[in-house]
Amino acid sequence: MAAAPSPSSVKPVPLLKDELDIVIPTIRNLDFLEMWRPFFEQYHLIIVQDGDPSKTIKVPEGFDYELYNRNDINRILGPKASCISFKDSACRCFGYMVSKKKYIYTIDDDCFVAKDPSGKDINALEQHIKNLLSPSTPHFFNTLYDPYREGTDFVRGYPFSLREGVPTAVSHGLWLNIPDYDAPTQLVKPHERNTRYVDAVLTIPKGTLFPMCGMNLAFDRELIGPAMYFGLMGDGQPIGRYDDMWAGWCMKVICDHLGLGVKTGLPYIWHSKASNPFVNLKKEYKGIFWQEDIIPFFQSATLPKECTSVQKCYIELSKQVKEKLGAIDPYFVKLADAMVTWIEAWDELNSPSDTNSSKKANGAPLPAAAK
Amino acid sequence: MAAAPSPSSVKPVPLLKDELDIVIPTIRNLDFLEMWRPFFEQYHLIIVQDGDPSKTIKVPEGFDYELYNRNDINRILGPKASCISFKDSACRCFGYMVSKKKYIYTIDDDCFVAKDPSGKDINALEQHIKNLLSPSTPHFFNTLYDPYREGTDFVRGYPFSLREGVPTAVSHGLWLNIPDYDAPTQLVKPHERNTRYVDAVLTIPKGTLFPMCGMNLAFDRELIGPAMYFGLMGDGQPIGRYDDMWAGWCMKVICDHLGLGVKTGLPYIWHSKASNPFVNLKKEYKGIFWQEDIIPFFQSATLPKECTSVQKCYIELSKQVKEKLGAIDPYFVKLADAMVTWIEAWDELNSPSDTNSSKKANGAPLPAAAK
Repeated sequence: MAAAPSPSSVKPVPLLKDELDIVIPTIRNLDFLEMWRPFFEQYHLIIVQDGDPSKTIKVPEGFDYELYNRNDINRILGPKASCISFKDSACRCFGYMVSKKKYIYTIDDDCFVAKDPSGKDINALEQHIKNLLSPSTPHFFNTLYDPYREGTDFVRGYPFSLREGVPTAVSHGLWLNIPDYDAPTQLVKPHERNTRYVDAVLTIPKGTLFPMCGMNLAFDRELIGPAMYFGLMGDGQPIGRYDDMWAGWCMKVICDHLGLGVKTGLPYIWHSKASNPFVNLKKEYKGIFWQEDIIPFFQSATLPKECTSVQKCYIELSKQVKEKLGAIDPYFVKLADAMVTWIEAWDELNSPSDTNSSKKANGAPLPAAAK
Repeated sequence: MAAAPSPSSVKPVPLLKDELDIVIPTIRNLDFLEMWRPFFEQYHLIIVQDGDPSKTIKVPEGFDYELYNRNDINRILGPKASCISFKDSACRCFGYMVSKKKYIYTIDDDCFVAKDPSGKDINALEQHIKNLLSPSTPHFFNTLYDPYREGTDFVRGYPFSLREGVPTAVSHGLWLNIPDYDAPTQLVKPHERNTRYVDAVLTIPKGTLFPMCGMNLAFDRELIGPAMYFGLMGDGQPIGRYDDMWAGWCMKVICDHLGLGVKTGLPYIWHSKASNPFVNLKKEYKGIFWQEDIIPFFQSATLPKECTSVQKCYIELSKQVKEKLGAIDPYFVKLADAMVTWIEAWDELNSPSDTNSSKKANGAPLPAAAK
């Protein structure tokens, strides 16, 4: 028999270490990673550098990462790079595309480790993984929240045939301190802070849309990756700060169609800094009135049963966007085309031979910088 | 100017004191009210005595109440009394019918005052009233939960046109200690206790059903009262413990149709005693397989736009129950007929001249015992 390893050599193995990439969009040095070191250090990072590609982004010592700037994106995708936003954190979805892992966690660089009510640091990634690895219950609401969590279950009256649940595709985490408000609400309530720790995870029911925030988000790339396109935002576009919303609406319609689940609630991160509400208002204002048409569109969107893959669903949705939202603004025609380009680019980088491997296959795009 | 009242003469006025009745079904002395005294004493109670009418139910001193036993129900409703269950807590809905108030809170007699995480007694009724007096948001999910609660709001991406919400018809509270499990789950997990205090109230989205529990429940009688029929259960019926579920399914379909909201979450009560799982299994077993058909029926039920009142909706639903569930078991034909009887009885006791008054009108049924 092998000798038991000495305690000092035993390190807790992080969950799904080789099956998850952490995607971070940024324009600055990643000092925020220092605080995440105990939780992220053993994972692989994909950093998508936004803005000026000549700038050097410093990554703290000891992290395993690949970094892509705009030049890399252009080189790798060629003309299809047009679907990736510039000067907007929407560029993060490029990281989803080049990952070869089953799971993605994405986080903003102004998000820090939050504490639970007992004062303990919250391992956000671990909670997201728990959310993703347990089923969702979109067909009937459980009043004691996630029935798969320890210490709870399905309540009286919950149909037994629905207790197996469905696979979970997305885990949407929340934020303590600065809440994710739009510019008008920021302006009206500049001092409001989120201090309420709600100890719950729940499934967003089938047929219900929600505002998905990209700050603290995990998903199963194999189940839903191609729907996680963050749209055309920022430089040269009439709109910003709707990248994650767009992805959330598309993703939810497709999850509902394919029988996949979306959870929201725990984990919390500590959102450190409110963005400038005046700048935000400029980015958002078209979105604020467009969403009054976009949301009813997505609420009534249905996909034909021939749409049996995420890609097929997404292409179908792009057609409906062009047809039904194109009348609002020519932007939606451009966006619908970009949705198609995104899927083409996704499929190019994720051919079957690649996706069967959990490691980077030969011929995969080379990052500009790798540790 | 009048002299300021001395502090000892100033008592905090309980919310909606003259607009809310507390309905309690029971077979025993109501000693449990002692613990609720600070919260209930200024409200009016409607006690529905189940089982042997010759038994005397003791109510602690100082409570203002009316009490109805089976003889009273038979006398007041005549032949229509057949729609009120006997030997089952479903009889509580008789209390909803004879109330003349705008709001109802109903609670089981094995439910006690719970404590919040800071150790403070929870005023369940106050929280229910807050839930009922603030709008619901069934058309879009807000990830920071009830946006009308202090310290929070609608998040980025929530359509502004939906921020007024809709009137709240029902507030469904939860339980610490003994969770509301069905008999099979009770048998499998006899020692599971609910210790998780989830500090949230949320709207059950439109189109989503949930298992409504009658243990700790408040509603707006004017908005939804006639849909709160707890069905035929207990004595002479093939089923028990589905009274609140039945009301919940019917109520939710009607709320969705009429544009009313349903909230769940806070407040918690302390549920003291698990009922006998073997007895429960006997009551539930038909429900456990019937619900596999009943729930899809309610999930796909639609009401024509001519159904503009709760009564019209309920009568229409009774027809659909007879037509579509009658094939499962003759019980559903009987239940559909009882639904119609219930509405007839409701309308008889709640004629327009009565409902315009918040106090008992002349000619209203006399209780057997009144303090």
